[in-house]
This record gives sequence, structure tokens and C-alpha cells, in this order.
Amino acid sequence: MPRTLTVVTSLLALSCLFAPARADEGMWLFNRAPKQQIKAKYGFELTDAWLEHVQKSSVRLSTGGSGSLVSANGLVMTNHHVGSDMLEKLSTKERDLLAEGFYAKTAVDELKCPDLEIDILWTIEDISARVQGAVKDGMSNAEAGAARRKLRSEIEEEAKQKTGLHCESVELFQGARFHLYSYKRYTDVRLVMAPEKGIAFFGGDPDNFEFPRFDLDMCFFRIYEGDKPLQAEHYLKWSRNGTTDNELVFVAGHPGRTERLFTVDHLEYLRDFSYPLTLRSLWRREVQLATFSGRSEEARRIAEGDYFGVQNSRKARTGIYGGLMDPAIMDAKQQAETKLRAAVAANPEWQKKWGDGWDDIARARKTQREFALRLAALGGGGMNLGGALFGKAKDLLRLADEKARPSGERLREYRESNMASLELQLFSPAPIYPDLEIENLCAGLQQMVELLGGKDETVVKALAGKSPRARAEELILGSKLISIDERKKLAAGGQEAIKNSKDPLIQLARTLDDENRKLRKRFEDEVDAVEKLGYSKVAAASFAVNGEDQYPDATFTLRLSYGAVKGYSENGKPVAPYTNFAGLYERSEERDNLPPFQLPPRWAAAKDSVNLNTPYNFVSTCDIIGGNSGSPTINKAGEVVGLIFDGNIHSLVLDIAYQDEQARAVSVDSRAIIESLRRVYDCNALADELQGTRKN
Amino acid sequence: MPRTLTVVTSLLALSCLFAPARADEGMWLFNRAPKQQIKAKYGFELTDAWLEHVQKSSVRLSTGGSGSLVSANGLVMTNHHVGSDMLEKLSTKERDLLAEGFYAKTAVDELKCPDLEIDILWTIEDISARVQGAVKDGMSNAEAGAARRKLRSEIEEEAKQKTGLHCESVELFQGARFHLYSYKRYTDVRLVMAPEKGIAFFGGDPDNFEFPRFDLDMCFFRIYEGDKPLQAEHYLKWSRNGTTDNELVFVAGHPGRTERLFTVDHLEYLRDFSYPLTLRSLWRREVQLATFSGRSEEARRIAEGDYFGVQNSRKARTGIYGGLMDPAIMDAKQQAETKLRAAVAANPEWQKKWGDGWDDIARARKTQREFALRLAALGGGGMNLGGALFGKAKDLLRLADEKARPSGERLREYRESNMASLELQLFSPAPIYPDLEIENLCAGLQQMVELLGGKDETVVKALAGKSPRARAEELILGSKLISIDERKKLAAGGQEAIKNSKDPLIQLARTLDDENRKLRKRFEDEVDAVEKLGYSKVAAASFAVNGEDQYPDATFTLRLSYGAVKGYSENGKPVAPYTNFAGLYERSEERDNLPPFQLPPRWAAAKDSVNLNTPYNFVSTCDIIGGNSGSPTINKAGEVVGLIFDGNIHSLVLDIAYQDEQARAVSVDSRAIIESLRRVYDCNALADELQGTRKN
Repeated sequence: MPRTLTVVTSLLALSCLFAPARADEGMWLFNRAPKQQIKAKYGFELTDAWLEHVQKSSVRLSTGGSGSLVSANGLVMTNHHVGSDMLEKLSTKERDLLAEGFYAKTAVDELKCPDLEIDILWTIEDISARVQGAVKDGMSNAEAGAARRKLRSEIEEEAKQKTGLHCESVELFQGARFHLYSYKRYTDVRLVMAPEKGIAFFGGDPDNFEFPRFDLDMCFFRIYEGDKPLQAEHYLKWSRNGTTDNELVFVAGHPGRTERLFTVDHLEYLRDFSYPLTLRSLWRREVQLATFSGRSEEARRIAEGDYFGVQNSRKARTGIYGGLMDPAIMDAKQQAETKLRAAVAANPEWQKKWGDGWDDIARARKTQREFALRLAALGGGGMNLGGALFGKAKDLLRLADEKARPSGERLREYRESNMASLELQLFSPAPIYPDLEIENLCAGLQQMVELLGGKDETVVKALAGKSPRARAEELILGSKLISIDERKKLAAGGQEAIKNSKDPLIQLARTLDDENRKLRKRFEDEVDAVEKLGYSKVAAASFAVNGEDQYPDATFTLRLSYGAVKGYSENGKPVAPYTNFAGLYERSEERDNLPPFQLPPRWAAAKDSVNLNTPYNFVSTCDIIGGNSGSPTINKAGEVVGLIFDGNIHSLVLDIAYQDEQARAVSVDSRAIIESLRRVYDCNALADELQGTRKN
Repeated sequence: MPRTLTVVTSLLALSCLFAPARADEGMWLFNRAPKQQIKAKYGFELTDAWLEHVQKSSVRLSTGGSGSLVSANGLVMTNHHVGSDMLEKLSTKERDLLAEGFYAKTAVDELKCPDLEIDILWTIEDISARVQGAVKDGMSNAEAGAARRKLRSEIEEEAKQKTGLHCESVELFQGARFHLYSYKRYTDVRLVMAPEKGIAFFGGDPDNFEFPRFDLDMCFFRIYEGDKPLQAEHYLKWSRNGTTDNELVFVAGHPGRTERLFTVDHLEYLRDFSYPLTLRSLWRREVQLATFSGRSEEARRIAEGDYFGVQNSRKARTGIYGGLMDPAIMDAKQQAETKLRAAVAANPEWQKKWGDGWDDIARARKTQREFALRLAALGGGGMNLGGALFGKAKDLLRLADEKARPSGERLREYRESNMASLELQLFSPAPIYPDLEIENLCAGLQQMVELLGGKDETVVKALAGKSPRARAEELILGSKLISIDERKKLAAGGQEAIKNSKDPLIQLARTLDDENRKLRKRFEDEVDAVEKLGYSKVAAASFAVNGEDQYPDATFTLRLSYGAVKGYSENGKPVAPYTNFAGLYERSEERDNLPPFQLPPRWAAAKDSVNLNTPYNFVSTCDIIGGNSGSPTINKAGEVVGLIFDGNIHSLVLDIAYQDEQARAVSVDSRAIIESLRRVYDCNALADELQGTRKN
């Protein structure tokens, strides 16, 4: 039987909209941790010191994942698939770090990453009142939105001036609350160790989001400061014994995005409009990249990162889409919403203040539907049409225009607070492959024709009389932006240089810029601002009805989850919480040792030397989602017991509703990390550093 | 550089709408063969005897391909990928005919196919005047369409009564002409020989539609009549020496569908609506089937045929879509259309009779657009929602209803003339795999939600409160239709039995039937009938302006193409017309002998015994398209010189416009067939039979 994606056998396990969290539900804010719930269920006292230590030991990586500091010398642990973008960028035709793995025996061997940033969350401040105060009586929604955006940017810059930290105002509860997150940011990050992709991603796409699982999905970097390893104030110690069944564990990480607090109308919009549009694009890209990769070994290598990224998104979204298509889940959502609205309606004051919040949100969706397809065809608000080079052309064009404005009035991504990151990307020495660029830009142009039709004026201008492929070839091969010097020259030259540029990619970006900006503005004024207004009412209503003890939807900011190591049952059969190395060898044999179940040579050779009973991967009920990849799994003592790298197939629906019957977070066991470092990779120095037994 | 799909470097090479054929263009009717053109260009006299001999040696297979009689004992040659559906159905978990190949050393070893039909075209009669005569003054379009459909069915049955042949009225020139095709039909067909899929489809999806190429895409069946091998009146002899560069060759086969005569408005409909919809479905299915196949070796085996079919359609349609998205091709179409319309407009009588034909077609498209998405969501006019079992449920339901009506008033596929084929499929002993059925039906239900939205009434009824996957599981596992006896019982019981059936698949079919029939009727009355009217005007105009010497768009009926063995040039480099066995071994080595470039053991072992210089695959300028798979390539003497199995990537655009600069048909060389039968497979008896040296 194929495993089902969306079976939620008991409705009781479903989270209710804005209802107080039960079970092990919740991606909690560090400044509003679920102390009572944990005390009540597990008898464990979460202290402020514990929380601060874990917060300052947790990191966020600019490749879109989480990680943790795991030594006093700035060692960072994350997933292989979080680091793989860097592994790809540090690879060459001759040295394939993804295929072969990497280990720097000494500090001088560590490889500097071209464009990786690591953030550590240092302080959190509630700025809700100040941000909401920017909105004056009589302002339109668009004006209110602009005022909030402007003030948020001012607060960020003011804080940055004062603290020197990287500051971000974070919108929580769909805009009902705003907190200021200040980070220590590091850009000198070096690769220390990565196993082969063959073991990190053993089982490939077929096993992705599945359990039992056998992946060593780990990767180690080191933060440098002033050309020396960071002396970390806080870092997580390594657990001596790992976990046992039913043990309480925590996950500190950066879940990217959930949609649990969405209204039913909003979820229906996702189901009937937004997901079909996104999945259609992912299916196309997956098929196109598979075709591209089939052409040669080199093509496969250069497209590997894009291909995996698309497969992974597709599988994750398929799971969420499955939940949205499940009438049982939607009915439960509807019931919860009906209950909350009834509670509001029963109180005339509440009804007057908040009663129309749901209608605001519905109105925003209706408006969005009018132009969302068009905006998607133009690459979304960020105008990401496809490929790295077009992205750089667009950034050069917009940077020139935006720099001429005060920071607070710029498009968010070009504000002063983001300038260093932007330049890191824009002038990155990471390799760019013209073949892949043509493929990716061609896909973007094809999607434009597909969504807007061949007679559309913008499409006609973009294609300039050529087929998407011929046009993509002409643009990529005719552009000089592959040269970092050329990009630096254009960026330095400002508006004048961009205006005079004959570079075909800059010209294409210019052709599309006006319309894209208009659509983006429409989105910000007529959708985002209206929706925020609505959600702030709904959230206020929910706080009033259900109390303040709630967690917001995920926003790729630091959250704390908790739960127990715990197996589950599938098709009536128990699934044990742990796998071990013996299982890895069995699974490989069962699949004839063929890719993606082929063991790397080091692992084939190590069969007799590793302890086959070593716990390898394990599951827990912790509430996680994409973005949590690389998060440390932590015990009560605040020690590392595992490394989150995936959720099982049942966990995908967590995007819209928590359930703990079958949904599980999957970690690499801390014991497997040490055993493989020592017995398979001969990385004893690294293992010593982790276990705190290294002599410095 | 990735190979481009759509490069048409010279507009001069494009076919003009309805313009007289130039170059080697044309899929010609056997009763209107291009004698003059061939005489003029190649100095060869095409005789009626030659045409009759080739016609009666050509066959059509119900799996959707072409083939030829190649011995006096009813031996049929076709492609492996045309026969693979049977190879899959004849396989079991223990005996994988696709992986291992098959050879029946003696007649008793030949394997009877569960549900394969082979047709040989015996006579052609022009019935245009009679069919058009069914339309009386004052009839609406819908009435005219119904009258034509009814009369066509009467003509077919009358002819069948008279001749005992299987008779089909064929609509040509988009409804401007009707011919009656009468076939000898055979249903006792047995498998004689098939090589391993690893050599037949060497290079897999990456090499599909590419050249140079190295595929032994062949398969041999034998027709039986009265339990004895068919004594064939006509069959093709084997060429002694094969072809040489620039030699004139012919292809007799059944091209499935082209869209060359479509108006520009119609092509725009394809580009902006129909292809995006179809490709979206193909992308989804390809990704879903890849995921399904990844689960286990057995899953891969049972889904292999579906998966290949989807990949193949996707690649072919991607090529056509590429042509539609190419402004140069569309501009050329527009110019030709403008020219023809101007010629019509210049003649008042013509203008009055035919001038609004283009508008009729545009009107049909506009109407179609109103409900095409809905019809697609309901599985199209045939209500093919997904999976073999639901198809059988639908057939049982409709068969019961339709049988109660006179044959001429039934849905086409349930008319008496088609009853034998229908029953062959309906009661086929071919294996049905519940896992795959769940997968395929789930995909159909998901597509319904995707296209119609989760709140749509039909969707709600179809899902019955479950997610698409849970619902598909419930339906497939709860149905008894997997049993042939059950299907026979229900079919025998007629309307009463179906009405009382509690089978969940029958019930689902019944739930959807009414709406599907209504939409289908709307399509037939408001789209098809109107469009036919329009095209009959446009065709009449074109015949008047350009003469009668034209060929119609492909209709999966027998056509004759001609051309020369001829290389071409790509990225400025010459591509030779022939590959050889040496190239096969080189390509496998170059790709590390990994799937899909892995040589089957027999081929690895035969490297020293086969003649490496044997011509293997070759290209010609013959005008072919999907459906031509398995067609014989024939020399002037009417002998087999090759076996068509593919077109190169440039040929995909032939669907909408002929070009001969780079577009090529790809054949297996007749010499490679003999060499491999004798030296690799030890099939000397079969080789003797082909070469006419077998002692009977």
C-alpha cells in the first residue's frame, strides 16, 4: 500500500483555531514560553536562564535553516541539506563536495563560504504599541500600511545605530503583534565537516519525509570573527547518553511558515487558488530539471541543488495541499471559527470592534485573486523570474533606484539594514553556470506565456519575437553580469550607470520593473494592509476569548517546541521511535544498494567497525515545520541529544493544523553523530570538540 | 548547451496553412497519393499496385501504434514501446518480460495477448457527399452534427453487414471530407519476440526524441486466425542491403494527430488554454508516478508503463508547446491565413460562401473555453477520471444505458461497430494492481479539486467527506470489479443490474455521469458541430485557392510519407544520418553504464561477436508524428529497410508545421534488426522468416 499523505484519523487531535494549545502543540516565542504547560505535563521547570542559554546557542542560517553553537570555539551544527547550497558553491568539476564529503583536519583547511550569513538572536522587544501607533485616525488601509512599514524600518535602523546588532521588526499573529528581534550577525563562516550526500540524504526523494529513516543529515561550520574562531558566550554541551523512549525533549529553531491561524476563507483561497498555482510551477520545474539533469553527469551536478530544492518543496506542499483537500480538516477549522465568531457576536462591544475582521480578510483575498496570477507570472513581489543572473540584474536595477530614496521609503529588501546581506549575495564569488541559467530563465519565460497567454503585451515585450528558449539563450549569453567586477562597476555607477547599461538582462529587468512594482504596491496596499487589519481584529478577539497564552504562526524566527520521544502506529502496525545503523545496512541491501540507497564507500567499508546498535534516527512529538531543519534537539539539561532534519509524512499537515497521533519530527541521534565521526570519518578532533574532551 | 526544442532557423522551411506541399512534406491519403510530387522530385513512379501492396501490408495496433506484416505467416513487426503494454500485461512478479525480453522458439511458445487488436486497412470509399447530405436546410448546428453522427454510424453498420469488415467513417480536413475505412480486424495476437527494455529504450527519457540514437525499439507479434498463423495475402519483403545516404524512402503508418490546418485563433487557444491545462496534468502525473515508483522495485514495475507513457506525452507536448510559444512560427501561420482570407475576400461569391468560416471556428473556441476546464476535471468526454478499474465501472454503467438505444443514437464508443473491442477491453484478463489503481484514481480526484475547487458541488459529492487519497482507497478496496466474473455478471444484467449495484466505483461513475454527458453534449453541439461547419468552409476555400492536391491533418488512419535518408546540422555541427553498434558501446561507457544507459547482459557479452559497423539507427526527412511508431520504413521496391520509432527533438514541432531543415524521423535500421536477432539473441528462425530464408 502506498503510504497515505493525509490520514488524520481522529478529529480530536486537530488543533482548533486560536484554541489554547493542548498536547505538545506549539512553536512558542522565547519571550512567551509555555512554562505552565510543560510543568503541568512533564513536571519540568523552564527557567529564564535555561531559555536565554538555549536562545543564544541557537543560530539561523541565510540558506533558510536553523543550527546551534556546539563548542566554545564557534562550531555550528546544522543539516547537510541546509549546508548543501554552500557545498555546491564550494565544489568544482574536479572536487565534488556533495558526492565526496569534506573534513578540515586543522583550522587552515576550513573552507570559507562565499555568501553564508549566520544570525544569533540576542534580544527581543515588544514594539506592538509603537507600530500600531503609527496608524492615525482617518488613514486609509494603504496609508496605514505604509505608515507601519515606514515606522518599522525606522525602529530597525534606530536600534541598529544604538546596539550595532542586525535588527528586524517581526510581524506576529498575522500583524496583530510586532516584536523587534536583534541579532548578532556573522558573515565569515567556514566549512568544517560534511559527510557524503549519499549518507546525508540516503533514500533520496523516495525516503524524504518518511520514517523509519537512515540519514546522517549533518554538517559543521565554524563562525569566525576578526579572522579567528568565535569565542562563543553560549553554546550547547553534548549529552553523554542521548535520549530514552518517552523522554521530554525540546527543539529550538526557526520554523519558516505555518498557516494555522488562517481563517477558513483564507485556507480555501490556498486550496482553490494559491496551492494549485504553486504546485503547477513546482511540477513543471521538477520535470524540467530532471530532463536537464539527465543530459550529462555535469548537468546533474550543477542542477542538483535546484532539483532537490524543488523536490523537497513539492513533497512538503503536496502534504499540506492534501490536508487542505481533506473535508474533515476543513470542517474542524470551520467549527472552531464558528465558535469564536459566535463568542464575539454574543458581546456587542466585541462585535463592534472585531466582528468584521473575517470579512476584511475575505475582502483582501478577493482582491488578491484579481492579480495574483499576474504577479506570480512576473516572479512575485521580488521579481524572481528565474536564475541567479536575472536576480542580480534585477537587484542592480532596483538597488540603483532605491538607494536614491530614504531608507524608510524603500522596498524592504533594499533598506540600509539589509544592505550588507544584499551585497554579500550580489557580489558573491559562487560559481554561475550559463547552461543552468538558460534553463532557469527559460522556465520563467515559459511560465509567463503559460499564465498570461502569448498575446499579452508584457509577454510580447519580454520575448522580443523569440521563443522562450531562444530568448533565454540570447539574454544569458549576451549578458556580462557573470563577472563580479561588472556587477560591482554597475552597482558603484548608480542610476546613471544602470540607465546607460546595454546589458540585455538589465534591460529585461527594466522592461518588467514598472508593472511588477505596481502589482507589488497593489498587494501591499489592497491585500496585505487590509488583511493585517482583519487579522489584528481576529487575533484580538481570540486573545479576549481564549486568553493570551497562544503562539503565533511561524515566521522564520526563533521558536521553542517541546515533546516526547515517541513512536506511533501506521496501518495498524507500531513504528518504533528509533532506528539504528543495522537498519541502514539492511535497507541498502533490500534496495540492491542502488541509488539513492547506495552506501558511500566509507560506509560500506565501516560495516564491521561501527557499533550496529547505535541509535541512528529518532522521532518525537515536537511541533516543527520547514525552516526547523538543523535545529538542535535538546534535553532538560540543555544538552544536544539530536539534530532535527525532517518530519514524517504525517507531519506535513502541521502547516495548517497540529496533530500528534502520527505526525512526528525526525532527528539524527547525537550518539550516531559521534559514532560516525569517530568510526567512519576518522574525525576524532571534531568529536572531541563536540564532547568537550578536546585539548585546546 | 542544453539542446533547444524549438529552433526553427528558417521561416522558409515552415509549412504554410493549406499551401501546396513542398519539400518532403505530407502525411498523404493512400487514395490521394502524391504521385506527381514524388515523380518530380525523385523520378520515381508510384503505382496503384505498389500502393495497394503497401496498404495491405500495413497494420494498426489498438495500443496506439503502427506496424507491418513481414512474413507470409502473419508475423507483425512494430516497436517495443508499442508492444510494451502487452509485455507489461503478460509479466508477473516472477517473469518481467520488459526487463528480460522474450523469444518464442516455436509456435507453441508464443504468448497470447490479453486484449490486443490489429487492423489492416482493406478499402477506402469517399462518403463526403452522403454525410454532408444528411444536413438539411434549416437545421441548427447541433441538429446538423447529430444528423451527421447518426448517418455515419448507419453507413458504418451497413458496410459492416455487407462486407464483414470493421468499418469506420473518418473525418478528414477537420470535417470537410468523410471517407469510409474498412478494416480486417484480428484479436488473436501472440507475442513472438521482444528484446530487453534496456536496449529497446536505451538512454531512457534523456535520449527520447534525441539523435544520435542507439535503440533497438522492436517487437514481433503474430496474427492468428482460427488458431493458426494468418496466411497473409500481402506482406513486406526484407531488403537485402538496407539504405544508403540520400536514398528515397517511404513510411506507411498511422500518424495520430496533427494541428497543421488549424486557424491562428485555434492555435492560440491551444497555446493559451489547452496546452497549459494538459501539461499541468502531465507534470503532476509524472511527479506522482515517479514518487510512487520510488517506493519499491515492485511499485516501479507495475507503474512503468504509465510512467513512460506520461513522460513520452510530456516530452512530445513540450516540443509542440515550444512551437506554439515561438512568435516566428505563429507569425508565419498568421501570414498564410491572411493571404488565404484575402484571396477569399477578393471573390464576392467565395466570400459569401466561406468568408465567415474563420469566425465560426473562433466562436466554437470561445464556447469551448466556457466549460473545457470543467469537462477536463470530469475526465473529458470519455469520463476517464483515472485508473483501469474506474474506467471499467464507467463502461459498465454507460454500456447498460447505451445498449438500450438504437446503435446510431448511442455515444460513439458504445455503437455496435465497436462492441467487440469494448468487450475485449472490459473483460480483459490483464492484471490490475490495487496500489496503482488507488494512485491513479487519487490523482483524478485531486485534479477535480484542483480544477474545480473544494467547494464545488460535484467535488463534494465525489469525495464524500474524505480526502482524495482516503476516498480512492475506499473506492478501490471496496470494489469487486477487479473480478472478471463480476464485470461479466454486471454487463449481462444490463440496466437493472447496474441500477441495483452497490459497487462503490459504479456508484461514483453514476454520480458523475449526468454532468459529464451534459458537458459532452454541449461540446458536440456547440463546439464540434460549429467548428466542423467553419473548417468545411475554410477547407473549401483552400481547395478553391490552392487546388485539391492537399493532405489532411493526421487522424490515426493510414498515411504515406516520403523523404530521403539525410543528416542535418545542429549548433553548426553536422549530424550524420546513421549511427552504428560501435556508437552504442561508446555511449554506454561514456555514461558509466548506469541506467538508463546500462547495457543488458546479452549486449555486454555480445560486444566481440556483433559487427560493430552495422548501421543501427538512421534519420530521414519523412513527415511523421506520434502514432507512426512501429511504421515500416520502405524502399522503392516496397521492401523493409527500417522501423520508425521516434522523431528527433526538432520534429516535435511537426505537429503544427512541417520543416525539413532539422526535423527528422528516426528508424531502426533493418540490418541492425537482423544482426541483433542472429548474433545477440540467437533468434535465427525469426531472422530466417524475415529474410524469407526460413524453411516451412
